[in-house]
Amino acid sequence: MVKLALVQLLVSSNKQQNLKRAATLIKEAANKGANIVVLPECFNSPYGIQYFEEYAEELHGETARALSAMAKESNVYLIGGSFPEIQFGKYYNTCTIWNRVGELIGTHRKVHLFDIDIPGKITFQESKVLSPGNELTLVDTEHGTIGVGICYDIRFPEMAMIAARKGAFAMIYPGAFNTTTGPLHWELLQRARAVDNQMFVAACSPARDTSATYHAWGHSTVVDPMGKVLATTEESEAIVEAELDIEEMKNARTSIPVSFQRRFDLYKNVAE
Amino acid sequence: MVKLALVQLLVSSNKQQNLKRAATLIKEAANKGANIVVLPECFNSPYGIQYFEEYAEELHGETARALSAMAKESNVYLIGGSFPEIQFGKYYNTCTIWNRVGELIGTHRKVHLFDIDIPGKITFQESKVLSPGNELTLVDTEHGTIGVGICYDIRFPEMAMIAARKGAFAMIYPGAFNTTTGPLHWELLQRARAVDNQMFVAACSPARDTSATYHAWGHSTVVDPMGKVLATTEESEAIVEAELDIEEMKNARTSIPVSFQRRFDLYKNVAE
Repeated sequence: MVKLALVQLLVSSNKQQNLKRAATLIKEAANKGANIVVLPECFNSPYGIQYFEEYAEELHGETARALSAMAKESNVYLIGGSFPEIQFGKYYNTCTIWNRVGELIGTHRKVHLFDIDIPGKITFQESKVLSPGNELTLVDTEHGTIGVGICYDIRFPEMAMIAARKGAFAMIYPGAFNTTTGPLHWELLQRARAVDNQMFVAACSPARDTSATYHAWGHSTVVDPMGKVLATTEESEAIVEAELDIEEMKNARTSIPVSFQRRFDLYKNVAE
Repeated sequence: MVKLALVQLLVSSNKQQNLKRAATLIKEAANKGANIVVLPECFNSPYGIQYFEEYAEELHGETARALSAMAKESNVYLIGGSFPEIQFGKYYNTCTIWNRVGELIGTHRKVHLFDIDIPGKITFQESKVLSPGNELTLVDTEHGTIGVGICYDIRFPEMAMIAARKGAFAMIYPGAFNTTTGPLHWELLQRARAVDNQMFVAACSPARDTSATYHAWGHSTVVDPMGKVLATTEESEAIVEAELDIEEMKNARTSIPVSFQRRFDLYKNVAE
């Protein structure tokens, strides 16, 4: 049994305050037994292309050092949400993943940038500032392999298909959907990835701050390998906890054995 | 605007009666303006491996002739659910698709056979009797291209991904989920295919007959390209109707332009 905790942090414009609050909530989750803790996308800065340059750090900067210390102090695997990263003058939306002794075991730069335009509702162009990552991310932990994506990445089913077929038991997305796309798509996309790949899926959002320019949907959620919501919340700051039973995943895969029934003679296996 | 009607037929063990009732309901749907009518999986026989051999027909047998006449008489495109087909001593679960003058424009033999075993709940092994089809199916109509799958085929996301990427505006599944998998998965899988591929998705079930050996879930459903349920019903015999607005599909694809944002440099395109 693995205990997963999603920290739905209320992110402010004060980086120091965000780091401190994250550390407090991670410790709280660990004290309640969490083995793996997840932070939201852009957990140390407001979300918006006008903020990325100001808040950006190099990969091994202040935020990374703080995350390493949080993981070590709380003795948890930490999927450290994301922060704006700068390298060689380019900006990325980057997730760092830490083990229980505070070592960096993986990084994921958002592969699919959030460029959408729903007339009269929301327009957002991450690609105006950010560059995309060029790798899919799997990390090995003592609990098994985990796939990591960031937010808009969840709309592209191939990432979770590949992760599951390469042995991941969970796909985890720090993400910040909004009040336009959140109601219809946030839970649906997680349940879709879960049922199709018979794996655990979780997405961790910031809490909603209606004084910010971007209104996050919240509703951090954990879904089981049958596509059932295991745990969720509303839009306020919260820790969402769920026990992930690997036996349930095996049962799902034995009962409905799609992973042995695929017709790769008729279509390609995206994982190959 | 295309009007789609799903005929959630109450299937009996009397083939003649099933054909007659189907014709009546198709005519009713056409009179209400349907351009495309869908029948459920195994619409002319009870669903169960003990029935397939007894009810099987060759492709151009009595049932096909009846379907051709129904399409022509009602002047609709008819996605004729499925019936057990026999060819060269092998049995298939086959959907025939007819145009408005009663010509056969496509056939789909179920590609992924329904072999599942949920202990204490349901065990079903179509492959004990049936052979699988070996082709994915797209049909061209005056309303656009439609992808067709049968029931369990919906669990395999590649089929709808390929259909959408090859230009289909809708993926239609005659299907007969049951009271075990129906509640959690029937609507979820349709909404998943719809939101991921930004296409219309519909699934047409038989009505539930609690005196039969197999209890169909019913709940025939039409989903729009944003993953929203457009029309659905409960378990009784019914006609489910929905207007499919191709402009809405285009808007979805423009607003959230995933079809232009895929990273085929990082994963394969299953449609190629």
